[in-house]
Amino acid sequence: MHKVVIIGAGFGGLEAAKKLAKEKVEVTLIDRSNHHLFQPLLYQVATAGLAATAVAMPIRHILKRQQNVTVLMQEVSAVDTANNQIELACGSRLPYDSLIVAAGSTHSYFGHDDWAQFAPGLKSLEDARKIRGQILGAFEEAERMPEQAGKLLTFVVIGGGATGVEMAGTIAEITHHTLRSEFRRIRPETARVILVEGGPRILPTFEAPLSAKALTQLQSLGVEVRLNAKVTNIDAGGVAIGDERLDAGTVIWAAGVQASPLAKTLGVALDRSGRVAVEPDLSVPGHPNVYVIGDLAAASSRGTPVPGVSPAAKQMGRRAAQNIVLRMQDKPGRPFVYIDYGAVATIGRARAIAQAGPLRISGFPAWLFWLVIHIYFLIGFRNRLMVMADWAVAYFSFSRSARIIN
Amino acid sequence: MHKVVIIGAGFGGLEAAKKLAKEKVEVTLIDRSNHHLFQPLLYQVATAGLAATAVAMPIRHILKRQQNVTVLMQEVSAVDTANNQIELACGSRLPYDSLIVAAGSTHSYFGHDDWAQFAPGLKSLEDARKIRGQILGAFEEAERMPEQAGKLLTFVVIGGGATGVEMAGTIAEITHHTLRSEFRRIRPETARVILVEGGPRILPTFEAPLSAKALTQLQSLGVEVRLNAKVTNIDAGGVAIGDERLDAGTVIWAAGVQASPLAKTLGVALDRSGRVAVEPDLSVPGHPNVYVIGDLAAASSRGTPVPGVSPAAKQMGRRAAQNIVLRMQDKPGRPFVYIDYGAVATIGRARAIAQAGPLRISGFPAWLFWLVIHIYFLIGFRNRLMVMADWAVAYFSFSRSARIIN
Repeated sequence: MHKVVIIGAGFGGLEAAKKLAKEKVEVTLIDRSNHHLFQPLLYQVATAGLAATAVAMPIRHILKRQQNVTVLMQEVSAVDTANNQIELACGSRLPYDSLIVAAGSTHSYFGHDDWAQFAPGLKSLEDARKIRGQILGAFEEAERMPEQAGKLLTFVVIGGGATGVEMAGTIAEITHHTLRSEFRRIRPETARVILVEGGPRILPTFEAPLSAKALTQLQSLGVEVRLNAKVTNIDAGGVAIGDERLDAGTVIWAAGVQASPLAKTLGVALDRSGRVAVEPDLSVPGHPNVYVIGDLAAASSRGTPVPGVSPAAKQMGRRAAQNIVLRMQDKPGRPFVYIDYGAVATIGRARAIAQAGPLRISGFPAWLFWLVIHIYFLIGFRNRLMVMADWAVAYFSFSRSARIIN
Repeated sequence: MHKVVIIGAGFGGLEAAKKLAKEKVEVTLIDRSNHHLFQPLLYQVATAGLAATAVAMPIRHILKRQQNVTVLMQEVSAVDTANNQIELACGSRLPYDSLIVAAGSTHSYFGHDDWAQFAPGLKSLEDARKIRGQILGAFEEAERMPEQAGKLLTFVVIGGGATGVEMAGTIAEITHHTLRSEFRRIRPETARVILVEGGPRILPTFEAPLSAKALTQLQSLGVEVRLNAKVTNIDAGGVAIGDERLDAGTVIWAAGVQASPLAKTLGVALDRSGRVAVEPDLSVPGHPNVYVIGDLAAASSRGTPVPGVSPAAKQMGRRAAQNIVLRMQDKPGRPFVYIDYGAVATIGRARAIAQAGPLRISGFPAWLFWLVIHIYFLIGFRNRLMVMADWAVAYFSFSRSARIIN
């Protein structure tokens, strides 16, 4: 039987596995964790709005009925394209006839890896738990030492993309609404939330007028937004922007990602972010049986770079799976064409922007649009139900259900 | 204003704080974590049935409206009864006029502290997360290395009290139902679950006929129960019972607890488990303004020792709070009288035993009884709702929603 190995059970890898359900192939899906993560809502876990279990689902449970898939929880250390094998961290090797590498991306500190300890990024449930503990812990510490509340209650979020905007907006909500009247020695609503963006506008993948609307909405939540501000240093005490210093108790990194280091082991040319420049059919140059998809692929569609978003990853997963089947039938693979259904970014409670086709909306309608899409795509009926119940309560009460430091 | 310090926000400490709501006192409630834990359902978190956030609630959120309470998340290192102060782990000191010590208990390995690394116990959310990861991880590892499945899928639970029985029963359910058909190389239903109890029967605080019924129910779930079996060693490979050896991938400790080490700093006589032998009014001998309640207290009521259960802790919390108020009015404190409303222990899906007054029930009715009581007492309407929804789904589908390794 034709052996397909898929590395990574994110949006792309999982979709590829599903697409191969009815084919005469033996699929092995490998991921370092036991769960598929609904990454677009991970910021809600980091800000205590949702429990970790609401945005994660065991991979093997999702694929329970698909008999041709074996799921392995394991770390992959390298791809050996010369021998059509992958190397596992435990030392053993796994052969493949076709391979799909969907290992995703990790944080990039632009060469300042020492900043990582002071400014955690948000990729995994572990990261989310750490950030949640840090945010909630800052208020706890301030209540113990009110004389240091000024610094402790300054939150700096670095990076004005979707994650940065969501984090800053939600932290502002927590300080102004959720925690109000729960403290005796400090006033949480005096907290400062500062979003630092190196470029001239936030959410730069949106059209400029929408970016501007997002900025207004974010400011209305009480977030101080610093544009054209380049972070020059981060340490235990805060952030430096050139000569200026921001003393902060919590710094969160949402500024950059880089491709998984697994890309390097493929032995082909990588772009500046470490991504693999794939062929039109998503295969690796010189290795027609190896595909790279999702955030790890530098792919183009009709001459335009494909963005690193989940719908693109899913579409690539389907295309790679189809091309494997075509090649098994000795037919040529088809080129990947990205279908852009639009984009939506949320800023906080009842605030968002969206562009889809000719549509441009912002504020409450955009937020409703965002809500429906995200709940709809959340895997599994149960999770949808739970998230909706959590949010219905949160929306009307301003409370957040998952405020646990652990 | 009269300063009351309460150490510990478990059932006892929290109840004491609430009881003081309308009194002219200034309450400081100190706990090392930011949340009150609904300990009776913690085993559900450890066995992936509930999210951590379903059984934990921020202490300051619970006491939000009670203006005379300041909540501090902090570790207490000692009580200095001579100077009416407590020492905090950060080095600073806090004076009190009245003190309630409700610091609870921790695991006891009966002098074998080295066993702790191989056989985690279940007290905190952190413990629950660790045990959940270990149980789920054992199946993942077995799927990677099916040749070692025999050992990896042997789960030994040590201790036949409520926690041990709940854990063993639930692990058996997981192996026989939840994980069925999710693996390709192993059969989870072949897993062995062994409950080891040193005494002649499980759930010894119940009457013997009910214990016997519990044993039958537990065995019907596929649990092997070893009575009169004393564990003589635990290491990375499993458990020794005298000359017999049980090779096991997972060992869970539910055998013994000991009082918080804080008791030692009170400078009074402790019993064998390290608990403080309190006066009838729950005060510490020689220190009428210091009360010890909950698991930390060796209290008697009408000549009978008070059991270490949450209703007793709550009742002690109320009594200690009342006695503080009486003493402020120069009246003598009243003795503590424990009102026993009965006991219920669950064994697994639709299986339980209960005794209350003249009532003795087991099986499905006892389980329903257990369910209603536990959901009723879970703090907060939202949590009740979430837990019920989770359980309704779990009951009918045998699935478990929180199967995340992180």
